Amino acid sequence: MNTGQNLYEKAKKLIPGGTMLLSKRPEMFLPEKWPSYYSKASGCNVWDLDNNKFLDMTIMGIGTNSLGYANKEVDNVVRKVIDTGNMSTLNCSEEVKLAEKLIEINPWADMVRFARSGGEANAISIRIARAASGKDGVAICGYHGWHDWYISVNHNNSKDQLSNHLLPGLEPLGVPKSLKNTVHPFKYNDFDELINIVEKNEIGVIKMEVMRNFGPTNNFLKNVRDLATRKGIVLIFDECTSGFRETFGGIFKKFEIEPDLAMFGKTLGNGYAITAVVGKKSVMDYAQKTFISSTFWTERIGPSAALKTLEVMERKKSWEVITNLGIKFRKEVQILAKKYNLSITFSAIPAVTSYKFNTKNALEYKTLISQEMLKKNILGSTHFYACTEHTDSHFNHYFEALDEIFELISKCELDRLNITDLLESPVCHGGFKRLN
Amino acid sequence: MNTGQNLYEKAKKLIPGGTMLLSKRPEMFLPEKWPSYYSKASGCNVWDLDNNKFLDMTIMGIGTNSLGYANKEVDNVVRKVIDTGNMSTLNCSEEVKLAEKLIEINPWADMVRFARSGGEANAISIRIARAASGKDGVAICGYHGWHDWYISVNHNNSKDQLSNHLLPGLEPLGVPKSLKNTVHPFKYNDFDELINIVEKNEIGVIKMEVMRNFGPTNNFLKNVRDLATRKGIVLIFDECTSGFRETFGGIFKKFEIEPDLAMFGKTLGNGYAITAVVGKKSVMDYAQKTFISSTFWTERIGPSAALKTLEVMERKKSWEVITNLGIKFRKEVQILAKKYNLSITFSAIPAVTSYKFNTKNALEYKTLISQEMLKKNILGSTHFYACTEHTDSHFNHYFEALDEIFELISKCELDRLNITDLLESPVCHGGFKRLN
Repeated sequence: MNTGQNLYEKAKKLIPGGTMLLSKRPEMFLPEKWPSYYSKASGCNVWDLDNNKFLDMTIMGIGTNSLGYANKEVDNVVRKVIDTGNMSTLNCSEEVKLAEKLIEINPWADMVRFARSGGEANAISIRIARAASGKDGVAICGYHGWHDWYISVNHNNSKDQLSNHLLPGLEPLGVPKSLKNTVHPFKYNDFDELINIVEKNEIGVIKMEVMRNFGPTNNFLKNVRDLATRKGIVLIFDECTSGFRETFGGIFKKFEIEPDLAMFGKTLGNGYAITAVVGKKSVMDYAQKTFISSTFWTERIGPSAALKTLEVMERKKSWEVITNLGIKFRKEVQILAKKYNLSITFSAIPAVTSYKFNTKNALEYKTLISQEMLKKNILGSTHFYACTEHTDSHFNHYFEALDEIFELISKCELDRLNITDLLESPVCHGGFKRLN
Repeated sequence: MNTGQNLYEKAKKLIPGGTMLLSKRPEMFLPEKWPSYYSKASGCNVWDLDNNKFLDMTIMGIGTNSLGYANKEVDNVVRKVIDTGNMSTLNCSEEVKLAEKLIEINPWADMVRFARSGGEANAISIRIARAASGKDGVAICGYHGWHDWYISVNHNNSKDQLSNHLLPGLEPLGVPKSLKNTVHPFKYNDFDELINIVEKNEIGVIKMEVMRNFGPTNNFLKNVRDLATRKGIVLIFDECTSGFRETFGGIFKKFEIEPDLAMFGKTLGNGYAITAVVGKKSVMDYAQKTFISSTFWTERIGPSAALKTLEVMERKKSWEVITNLGIKFRKEVQILAKKYNLSITFSAIPAVTSYKFNTKNALEYKTLISQEMLKKNILGSTHFYACTEHTDSHFNHYFEALDEIFELISKCELDRLNITDLLESPVCHGGFKRLN
């Protein structure tokens, strides 16, 4: 057993759930074998606790590092912050500069609030929007974090309503039952469903991901925008995942539809914790009529890292680079799928690509990819989050390995091999699952 | 106008509320004159944007830096983190070591979850405790952050119930009204009130600050603990402010009463963002039955800084140093108050001391202190948060200045001077107030 797995065995006893993020659980990749912990990360490489070097062809910190790990320009700014103190009784001027920059990128907006996690940014935006609209009802589409306001959806009468947005089978344990029917999920591109929700409930806020798995059809986004405007509903676009991956800002720019509030996170500080709520003054001003305040939102690393990250992203046009890498990744996977007669379906936007095998053994094959890739010193799975440091030579290395794995999978599909015989560890988890 | 104030004028247009933390608003100290922003912080000194050096004799980052700003040992660890990557697809092993250390400090506990702000740690502990008890009702005493679960108290029938715990006059705008009567505040040392709340409501959780302004009387803490045990209620001690200021861990250690969960924050990473929920396995395990997960909780700076901070605090016995400094501060202030016949009342524990003048001009006098101290290059007010870097010479410098200011105040009290004539800026805010 590797050092990381040994440590993870200990972690599961000390930390309920083992890790701080579900998506970084070793069981999500390769139970009992995943290196689990890192000693060093640089570019698109990660070193485990035994100093083995891996090429990261999977989630790149779950999409935090679109400029690669330990980006020199960003890190040098953070070093300067440490040299001059990351915290004090006075505020950091970088937050004002970052607010200015985000308004420049979002000319439809006037004001900004910062937090240090995506869940917080979501909760802040919901508080402000409810205050502004004077109504508690929220219509949602997509994934918006772990907070009570969102998870309460699973208290509604039609249970497990978050199965299409977050995770199937999630019990809303510990979320007040009185929040039942305050939040109503709607399916992407189903404008009639949204109309129905708005007509039957006192909806003050619509919050959605602009695009997760496919784009808008039949003027969906424009219809949502018009509905919100007509009804005096605050429209929020959650760009925590999609922001800075297809445009220099929100993916909504592509569709020429503007929200009242938008959240950015994940890649905004290239790995350093910083998230933002950007919005129109008429709505954002309500932040002053309620209480939204936290000590660590005043630390200086987050906004300083974000300022430099934005500068580097803008110069490199990183969103074009990572989108092209994602498109190329899909093409190459598709070529191999065709070669080996495997049916797969892609999801998410190219820069944060996922795919699944359309077969009952989908999770077994995903596990096999992680297992065989690991032997070639690659962190691999059925996700690929691109960064500017991924090169052709990384792709060649990866797809040579994937060709062999797809060949194995095709043999399993043809019953010439048994996937159970090939797997050297238990099958990976597909979603939320209690650990033993 | 100084550069910081100019920037703050711009900030108020870009950031609703001007800053990320109410307590760091320039208006809380010296409207129109407070330096507002820092360029550098080191030890107990802060430099403003015009490179003026100030001695920080006030809130020391609102209590985040009990080892002083830019502590070398902690910063060197953070530098190493940056050199080797602060984020990756794999997890950081430091979080497991930090969990182990926190369990060692809290032998009554078994498991830990981390977040990056105090509000989050509070929300996590409430989610886990509600899940474990199976009841949504919470009894609270003290300040527990900005989240919906807490602010909802002001929806209860007896309005403004948070006035004794958080801030007076706070509208719960944007907090779902259906949360009304889920959370019930009780006064510190009023065990009968708590009994009454528990008898009349389905209470699953009691959350409290162990000690804010004065200590327990009539076995208050023991009675609360016994009540919780008897009724199967999860008892949570919020040590975000009090932790590591009177003991190496929670202040509850002094009273030999143990909670089921405890939160630590503020000083845990000496200025770097990290907060923790520590608790018994029987309760903490419920974190696995609900969804609590966030990307930036996986970054490596927080737990790395905390590990080193704990090591340095333990070696220096920093809680003894800062408590003694706080006691000394109170003595010196009291001597001057007596000398000038001023009536003052202290609040909070010595290491994070506050006092107020018992007169109608209390806020004017507080403003005068900040104004006159600033002229002597001291950040001063009626708060003093101690750090290990505060020395006798800092105290001498401060109390020489305070002697003169108290003399002015005594003349105002005796109507020999008019405080309005003395003030060169508007009076500071006493609490939450909308900015213009």
